[in-house]
Amino acid sequence: MASSFGNHLKVTLFGESHGFAVGCVIEGLPPNVLLDMAWIDQCLEKRRPGRNQWTTARSETDSYEILSGIYQEKTTGTPLCVIFQNRDEKSSDYEQHKHIWRPGHADYTGYVKSHGANDPRGGGHFSARLTAPLVFAGAIAEFLLYKRNIHLVGHIKKVGDVHAPSLHHFALYDETLEVLNQMHIPMFDSVKEQMLQIVSEARDASDSVGAQIEMGVYNIPVGLGAPFFDTVESRLSYGLFAIPALKGVSFGDGFDFASKKGSEVVDAFILDHQGSVKTNANHNGGINGGITNGMPILFDCVFKPTASIGIEQETLDAETDEMTCLKITGRHDPCVALRAVPIVKAVTALVLLDLLIEEEGLKAYE
Amino acid sequence: MASSFGNHLKVTLFGESHGFAVGCVIEGLPPNVLLDMAWIDQCLEKRRPGRNQWTTARSETDSYEILSGIYQEKTTGTPLCVIFQNRDEKSSDYEQHKHIWRPGHADYTGYVKSHGANDPRGGGHFSARLTAPLVFAGAIAEFLLYKRNIHLVGHIKKVGDVHAPSLHHFALYDETLEVLNQMHIPMFDSVKEQMLQIVSEARDASDSVGAQIEMGVYNIPVGLGAPFFDTVESRLSYGLFAIPALKGVSFGDGFDFASKKGSEVVDAFILDHQGSVKTNANHNGGINGGITNGMPILFDCVFKPTASIGIEQETLDAETDEMTCLKITGRHDPCVALRAVPIVKAVTALVLLDLLIEEEGLKAYE
Amino acid sequence: MASSFGNHLKVTLFGESHGFAVGCVIEGLPPNVLLDMAWIDQCLEKRRPGRNQWTTARSETDSYEILSGIYQEKTTGTPLCVIFQNRDEKSSDYEQHKHIWRPGHADYTGYVKSHGANDPRGGGHFSARLTAPLVFAGAIAEFLLYKRNIHLVGHIKKVGDVHAPSLHHFALYDETLEVLNQMHIPMFDSVKEQMLQIVSEARDASDSVGAQIEMGVYNIPVGLGAPFFDTVESRLSYGLFAIPALKGVSFGDGFDFASKKGSEVVDAFILDHQGSVKTNANHNGGINGGITNGMPILFDCVFKPTASIGIEQETLDAETDEMTCLKITGRHDPCVALRAVPIVKAVTALVLLDLLIEEEGLKAYE
Amino acid sequence: MASSFGNHLKVTLFGESHGFAVGCVIEGLPPNVLLDMAWIDQCLEKRRPGRNQWTTARSETDSYEILSGIYQEKTTGTPLCVIFQNRDEKSSDYEQHKHIWRPGHADYTGYVKSHGANDPRGGGHFSARLTAPLVFAGAIAEFLLYKRNIHLVGHIKKVGDVHAPSLHHFALYDETLEVLNQMHIPMFDSVKEQMLQIVSEARDASDSVGAQIEMGVYNIPVGLGAPFFDTVESRLSYGLFAIPALKGVSFGDGFDFASKKGSEVVDAFILDHQGSVKTNANHNGGINGGITNGMPILFDCVFKPTASIGIEQETLDAETDEMTCLKITGRHDPCVALRAVPIVKAVTALVLLDLLIEEEGLKAYE
Repeated sequence: MASSFGNHLKVTLFGESHGFAVGCVIEGLPPNVLLDMAWIDQCLEKRRPGRNQWTTARSETDSYEILSGIYQEKTTGTPLCVIFQNRDEKSSDYEQHKHIWRPGHADYTGYVKSHGANDPRGGGHFSARLTAPLVFAGAIAEFLLYKRNIHLVGHIKKVGDVHAPSLHHFALYDETLEVLNQMHIPMFDSVKEQMLQIVSEARDASDSVGAQIEMGVYNIPVGLGAPFFDTVESRLSYGLFAIPALKGVSFGDGFDFASKKGSEVVDAFILDHQGSVKTNANHNGGINGGITNGMPILFDCVFKPTASIGIEQETLDAETDEMTCLKITGRHDPCVALRAVPIVKAVTALVLLDLLIEEEGLKAYE
Repeated sequence: MASSFGNHLKVTLFGESHGFAVGCVIEGLPPNVLLDMAWIDQCLEKRRPGRNQWTTARSETDSYEILSGIYQEKTTGTPLCVIFQNRDEKSSDYEQHKHIWRPGHADYTGYVKSHGANDPRGGGHFSARLTAPLVFAGAIAEFLLYKRNIHLVGHIKKVGDVHAPSLHHFALYDETLEVLNQMHIPMFDSVKEQMLQIVSEARDASDSVGAQIEMGVYNIPVGLGAPFFDTVESRLSYGLFAIPALKGVSFGDGFDFASKKGSEVVDAFILDHQGSVKTNANHNGGINGGITNGMPILFDCVFKPTASIGIEQETLDAETDEMTCLKITGRHDPCVALRAVPIVKAVTALVLLDLLIEEEGLKAYE
Repeated sequence: MASSFGNHLKVTLFGESHGFAVGCVIEGLPPNVLLDMAWIDQCLEKRRPGRNQWTTARSETDSYEILSGIYQEKTTGTPLCVIFQNRDEKSSDYEQHKHIWRPGHADYTGYVKSHGANDPRGGGHFSARLTAPLVFAGAIAEFLLYKRNIHLVGHIKKVGDVHAPSLHHFALYDETLEVLNQMHIPMFDSVKEQMLQIVSEARDASDSVGAQIEMGVYNIPVGLGAPFFDTVESRLSYGLFAIPALKGVSFGDGFDFASKKGSEVVDAFILDHQGSVKTNANHNGGINGGITNGMPILFDCVFKPTASIGIEQETLDAETDEMTCLKITGRHDPCVALRAVPIVKAVTALVLLDLLIEEEGLKAYE
Repeated sequence: MASSFGNHLKVTLFGESHGFAVGCVIEGLPPNVLLDMAWIDQCLEKRRPGRNQWTTARSETDSYEILSGIYQEKTTGTPLCVIFQNRDEKSSDYEQHKHIWRPGHADYTGYVKSHGANDPRGGGHFSARLTAPLVFAGAIAEFLLYKRNIHLVGHIKKVGDVHAPSLHHFALYDETLEVLNQMHIPMFDSVKEQMLQIVSEARDASDSVGAQIEMGVYNIPVGLGAPFFDTVESRLSYGLFAIPALKGVSFGDGFDFASKKGSEVVDAFILDHQGSVKTNANHNGGINGGITNGMPILFDCVFKPTASIGIEQETLDAETDEMTCLKITGRHDPCVALRAVPIVKAVTALVLLDLLIEEEGLKAYE
């Protein structure tokens, strides 16, 4: 099993939902960087369950301890290990998932993969709780990008049949995007009410709903990524598909390209007011030939509806080989995507910082 | 720049469109395997330009030489290097792309990445000609999977507004899919005429059109892929996004998930007639928690319309800093996706064989 | 900085000597293995300082906590994180090593590498204390090899001018080697007294002394390692040179080869009594062309004398740019090699298990 | 099998001695570098067999073709593939080595590794002929280091019982070392005659002899390499042990450390005349804590005597299970080390350039 991610800047995740702790080791951080702990805490807070009526009522304590890699509040460049201790939770009801596999979950595949030795409690190593250390690592990366004036912004682009405006309309990082960036559930005002209504209805019906997230990265340098295999799209998608429930990634016009003509999607090169090379549109999402072209990186990702729903489902009991009725109790997110923007951001920041360090070395971050 | 791909089974691509040769080195092949050269040639033939009126009239000679890794027609397990020599082509008109960057191409990003030293002829290292050795490598992988009764099938799922039936309707690899697999441009009969009509219209208008491809992998074992980062989705998408013009990848219901309820996408576990664990639907595309669950792997990918169109485009001349008119002549594919199915298959086969070898070692292939 | 090691079985070390904890994450462990904690504890005990008069009087508490990767005492196959908390030690006197760099230590290079941000206390991330989690990981690997009847044995081969018998005399793992394996300071009886006398003299003179360790691996399968770069020698030496104070590695006859004739070092192939292919001598240390040949793997490694000595040394004070007198106080090992056999074993076991898993997959370990 | 080497700058070797060609792909080269082909040819010439009476009389044509990665004589930054075509040689007598395994060679292990499918002709993929492309790649790396005023020098330090002076006596790269660097068989004058006498005697007796090579790297920056696992010693030894017949690597005082006191090997920090930090001795070979300290990197490596000797040897015939007499005919090196200095240099240059690029990015090489 492979729980490491990144080339120069590398994150290794560990832990099970109901084990002693989850955490990560971050290797390759630039040394001598004063960390902004408030920045990190704010990122974690946006991911944290239990904050409002549209996300799970289950409360997680996201307090952490940094075990290594920091001296006198600065990074030393050695591996930074952070752990998030798990609370002692009742988990007696999980043992049944060793043989009554929840549809859409990793109970069955985890069982096969581990030759029957998997920790079934709360999804074990598959748990979304592992995104807490991932967001921690991503927050550091995002902070280092921010210091170089690179901005990441994400929002809920689609829930049900409600479509938000696209970031394609924003060529520059501006105040509107900054406002979006401060929101706990980043949604454009024009669609917010409708979207939350759909989530509320799903929640009230003990059901769940999927959603689409759009991300933009502003002010990224030209020249990151490389053919043939280390395209920016390859690197980002590799990391993104690790996020639980994420089932699709597309860049620029994405799946709309299937019904478009070449003449409709021309990104002509121009000079902007500062004399920098730009394009007059951004159908390619800031990437040509796998390499950043200086325009905003734009991509979409889709999250499936939470598989844990309160509605009764029929599934196999592998102990008896009979079908059985399963009703998943507990407090689950009616729409996981609502808490997923900081996770998508975290992965994005880690990938881009890794690409920057590969290109430039470590010198630019003190 | 990173031109290698794979963990145990690794492919390193090299070459420029108009250089001496393109080719690849394949490391980690199982030893003592008698290669089926007819199989390989057939895969290459499907990728080759110049075969019919819907693909580019430009003819490439895809003859190759194997330089190493084979002894007495069998793999030795040492690196197999194959080269495809380029024909001596006129390329004087390419030098202008050092400063008149074609929209949607890698002329500009390749220029920046190489500090001005890129080979501009035919796209250089960014050329789709590099997919010839990629298909060669993939053909070997596909052959080894086939010997284990694992089948890959792909088809054009969408062009313009024409939608083909989905592979979701096929739980098993059957005769219909086998027929699809034999076609040079794999399209379901029910939509073939309409789709080719759209491509013809684009071609006649000197324009191009995008398309969506759907892939299915049948009879793949349970338990491939691993959390947290080496999910099957991560591994496949990493490879797929290396394919020129590919801009999106999604698994199972993909971007449709955004408007679906959890209760609508339940893949309940069942026992099939042989007593094997299966699911009664396949919204998750054969993957739970990043690991194959024994159902067909189903995914979609989207190709943007060819950026090389005969219609006049305005773009920057970086030598004069003025806008200039660009009309790309030559014979280009009106719809690259029509020749992309063997490329998508190649990447898919390489990733899955790599995952199989990681799980099981090399012993099972003689 | 790169603190990970291994391909399939991977160990990531973290921590600083006087930080909160040192530890490691182990990825790629076979799942469903019942760990033998007594075995692990015994390995750690042999590495632990403070056990006898020939090693440092400084006592470390090597108690550890496993944070993940274990469920109901068995490995789950997910990353196993273990931490060794550091005791709260006085460390005020270390701050001077930010500018008064100890000769032979990493104070200066660590300072430059971290752009001045290194943790100087007890060597920080360079501390030999990080070998505790390394031995923990190695103990698991050694246990899994032992279950397959593969035995590792090491001993002190040379201290000062005293030479012990070589493992070249032992074609099979036998009782003599087993006795060696049980000793805390593994030395052949014939030289033990002399060797310890030399160490005692160094200790009494506030000096230190180097030593050479020889390792043997018995019953390793034929066919591990691979040309051109993944030779067994390459893989082992890569890991071994991470061990603090280790400055040389050689295989088989090693540096004696320089004065030998080809006709003196012939390892002729023969059949043994069981009909297995063996060689009638083992000058090559069990490796031909980088691949194990079924004979014992034999190698030597050399440790420099501990750089921390009580004798006064002149060195630079980078704050004043003047030379200054440095007398390192505290309790240091007069001969680090005496505690290094379990560390060398740990690295050896990790490398060989990694090679085995690469070759065979994970199936054979339950 | 793993035939790639390097992290950012990566070399993938392919080919068999009597196949169509041997060659390599070099990834990660800095772009826009004008290659000095005369420099490369000179490096290859020193490795080439057939040049004098002390090396094999077998003549290899080391002419090569560059297939990719170069445009208008400059590197493009894309993968550079170079091939050395093999001459059509008689190789009928090699087939016997499929069952009559030559002692000390990889015939047996290669047979097992490849499940019987190995190419036995001339050692196949294990052939020292693969060092030709390795030297090609290393020559480029050495040239780029040279442009930064970093110098590599190697010499034969020991043959039989003849010891040459050590590079420890040279704190700076000077004229004496430059003279050594120009020699085809780099030996200090004081020992040259004696050394060649020993080689001549071995040759005349149809025997062979081992040797020790010492390398020095002058003017390398402080701060390359990293704990815990990416030490300079780890990285160099990993590459060096790929060189056929190389069986030991040691740094600084190496195996002499075993009989030294700590007080005898102090490298005290001082300021040199330019105000740079240096040490007043170099027992540690320019490396502290795995990181370069600005002093010359000094290391030794030992080569075993060529296993191919004309003296009759008894070995197993695996077809009959009987012992048989083997007399290796043909023209072999009486002392492989005499041609190995350029190979050791090549590996050293590749490793150090890789470490430099990791630290600094690619910008500094145009």
